[in-house]
Amino acid sequence: MNGILIIAHAPLASAFLCCVQHVFPDNALSVVAFDVQPDQPPEETLAEARVLLKQLGTPCTLVLTDIFGATPCNVAQKLVDGTTTKLVTGMNLPMLLRAVCYRNETLDTLVVRALAGASQGVMQVAVTAPQNQTSIKNDQDPNDHQQ
Amino acid sequence: MNGILIIAHAPLASAFLCCVQHVFPDNALSVVAFDVQPDQPPEETLAEARVLLKQLGTPCTLVLTDIFGATPCNVAQKLVDGTTTKLVTGMNLPMLLRAVCYRNETLDTLVVRALAGASQGVMQVAVTAPQNQTSIKNDQDPNDHQQ
Repeated sequence: MNGILIIAHAPLASAFLCCVQHVFPDNALSVVAFDVQPDQPPEETLAEARVLLKQLGTPCTLVLTDIFGATPCNVAQKLVDGTTTKLVTGMNLPMLLRAVCYRNETLDTLVVRALAGASQGVMQVAVTAPQNQTSIKNDQDPNDHQQ
Repeated sequence: MNGILIIAHAPLASAFLCCVQHVFPDNALSVVAFDVQPDQPPEETLAEARVLLKQLGTPCTLVLTDIFGATPCNVAQKLVDGTTTKLVTGMNLPMLLRAVCYRNETLDTLVVRALAGASQGVMQVAVTAPQNQTSIKNDQDPNDHQQ
């Protein structure tokens, strides 16, 4: 099974891990979070990330990070080798949950799953109340037009 | 200026807000986070979200949430009216930072910006080290093939 290492600006990595533990309480093993502190030197951050990756001990690991170009992603880019460890950025909850669900697939497939999960999860959500009823107070029945 | 209300599983909403405050320390006003607790009844969550939206006091507000179909998104869907408040889900850091940067545009444009920011931020990141050097230990010079 592939490991998942989340590297993000503090406290975003551990917050994402909390969500995984909430949604899949029995499936959060081998998912590790690393909160990168704003004042931590990059070389120290990289050294710590290497220790975490080694401790994870999985043959292959998907590294997920929050945003391209920032320190957590730059560090993660130096961490991965492109074969046994691969890096995906722009992490959202749909990406992370998809990745956790498909951890038994190959690392290449897992990357595709993560990218698809993230993109498919981004959308505008329509309102549930009829849009011509917005002047009705929220605590009134929107189907009762006489009120 | 449009407000931004982040509604997500605890502690993800406040973690995202922390990141905004770190990246744009002078531009995080009118960005509010609401961590939805796992044991909180949806109707209570909705009532609390309405209070936050009212306190925000902006004429228009973009509501961002973590994942479609879960309680935070379901509550947010009941909160928005589709005209002065609109909902986007699948939030990632690129989406949020893009939304914060373009808060002065119309709410409709802001929705488009948020969706584009999120999608464009999702990508696999290539490794910086040569991929045929993965057998070399990380602390050795990858250019010295004799070691």
